[in-house]
Amino acid sequence: MHTFSDLVPRFEQYFTTHLPFPTVPDTLYEPCRYFLSLGGKRVRPVLCLMGSELFGDIPEDAWPAAAGIELFHNFTLIHDDIMDKAPLRRGKQTVHERNGQTAGILCGDVMNIYAYDRLSRIRHSLPEILHLFNQTAIAVCEGQQLDMDFELQEHTGIAAYIHMITLKTSVLLACSLQTGAILGGATAADAELLYLFGKNLGIAFQLQDDYLDAFGEPGKTGKQRGGDILADKKTYLLLQTLALATASQATTVRAWLGRGGEDKIPEMLRLFQDTGARDACREAVASYSQEAFECLARLSVAPERTQALRELAVYLLQRDN
Amino acid sequence: MHTFSDLVPRFEQYFTTHLPFPTVPDTLYEPCRYFLSLGGKRVRPVLCLMGSELFGDIPEDAWPAAAGIELFHNFTLIHDDIMDKAPLRRGKQTVHERNGQTAGILCGDVMNIYAYDRLSRIRHSLPEILHLFNQTAIAVCEGQQLDMDFELQEHTGIAAYIHMITLKTSVLLACSLQTGAILGGATAADAELLYLFGKNLGIAFQLQDDYLDAFGEPGKTGKQRGGDILADKKTYLLLQTLALATASQATTVRAWLGRGGEDKIPEMLRLFQDTGARDACREAVASYSQEAFECLARLSVAPERTQALRELAVYLLQRDN
Repeated sequence: MHTFSDLVPRFEQYFTTHLPFPTVPDTLYEPCRYFLSLGGKRVRPVLCLMGSELFGDIPEDAWPAAAGIELFHNFTLIHDDIMDKAPLRRGKQTVHERNGQTAGILCGDVMNIYAYDRLSRIRHSLPEILHLFNQTAIAVCEGQQLDMDFELQEHTGIAAYIHMITLKTSVLLACSLQTGAILGGATAADAELLYLFGKNLGIAFQLQDDYLDAFGEPGKTGKQRGGDILADKKTYLLLQTLALATASQATTVRAWLGRGGEDKIPEMLRLFQDTGARDACREAVASYSQEAFECLARLSVAPERTQALRELAVYLLQRDN
Repeated sequence: MHTFSDLVPRFEQYFTTHLPFPTVPDTLYEPCRYFLSLGGKRVRPVLCLMGSELFGDIPEDAWPAAAGIELFHNFTLIHDDIMDKAPLRRGKQTVHERNGQTAGILCGDVMNIYAYDRLSRIRHSLPEILHLFNQTAIAVCEGQQLDMDFELQEHTGIAAYIHMITLKTSVLLACSLQTGAILGGATAADAELLYLFGKNLGIAFQLQDDYLDAFGEPGKTGKQRGGDILADKKTYLLLQTLALATASQATTVRAWLGRGGEDKIPEMLRLFQDTGARDACREAVASYSQEAFECLARLSVAPERTQALRELAVYLLQRDN
């Protein structure tokens, strides 16, 4: 059995030596290679490998599956960056900023197709894996659309927000684990439990991300505290604040929205606290995490085999960056 | 055996009753439905059906395969329109023009994934079909990149132009036919011959398109004669003119490039004629067409079974629009 930290370099090694891109046209593939070289935690592909290893040795098919999932994830980042007009990703220029919008669109498109190319190399359970992957990929697109829509909407409810982050973020984590499980020979029940583990973990992780932006230790997160507040981002904390606020608190919140300046940060933090949104966020993280750990516990495998996934979940939820 | 005209309404009926899009998010799927409602000749999916019928009754698998190919083709059109900044497609607003760039990118992305969703429903030869489709889809992206690159290049050779249109246009026609052939139970040799038929037909068709823009009957093509000339588009005629021109003719051509105004149209037409580029284009159309028909003739099926494909090829090459 391997831990997350064991598997990251092994995946990285496989991924970089099996990169599918040819050399020409260089205008298409150089930006693809550039973007993948920016790195990332490789959480999704390693979850696929770990999901398969719960049930025995990592099967050969898990490697192209993991690579396909990572390529798909990077395709979505490249296109999301265009839609978000983001100049930077992981501290480096985004593809559309560096190579122009046409390169951004086309390099994302071809990376998505290479994701399918890798997945199609799976020799067992191909129709089942493809079906799961297609449904997941569709959900990710829908989540991105909902995220875009939310920015233009006056009111967004908590349930709609959870639905959006589930589609945009969680289902791909869930799919990664379930893909590994299927390839590892899991029963349908175990594969489904791993999907639910990933889905709940993903929601908890995203809510924790919202929480840390407001209440994390800036020294540890490496980000300015309150970046989401400055950008008026519709996070769980803001939506929950609007949901829980008294009429007078709501007026204050709405008055701060749209204004620039750093003074809004301590004011909004106080409102997050006073309305009970901060506590609600912590409780939601705890509740989705607990749900995730219960799914793991219900797997029909020996508890010591799930140790690495439990540790990874704790690490992801406690991370400060 | 069915003709192209028999199969177009049958495909249209299948396609519209099996459209894969759900209702929400409406902001994502309404533009998808809008774009598909603009129509198109449905050449690719019907080629898939015809390719399969050469070898027996149209198999059930040919229908989702044809739908997947048509969805993929429409995805590429939606993204190409963004890259080309095209306001209109088939006389109607393009998706990015009508619903914004984010909708254009995302609606293309999800349509590509639905293409794979349809293909994944094939119950026989799935790995083989997916492999062919992936290689084709990659080639189409490369062709679009080369097309974009050409617009920025000083010199583009004839061979490079043929390579570009092969990737951008022909390989998907070829893939459609070969997919049908595989699903219809063709031998590997016959499937390969159909691929080559489609590839050569596609090149002939594209060169004919370049020819008709300059020398077609405006009353029949429904387009203004010389649209490509006005836009300084790097067509076969222009590239061949530059390749065949004397030093003095080349100077004249280069002087007209970049200038606006309708007077350039008769001047360029005369240069296409005088340099021999017009004849070269006609000969190239004839040569690729002949190559295509020879591939059909070499199929190991009774000649009467290939009648419908021969008629379609003649129709596509003689069309005036």
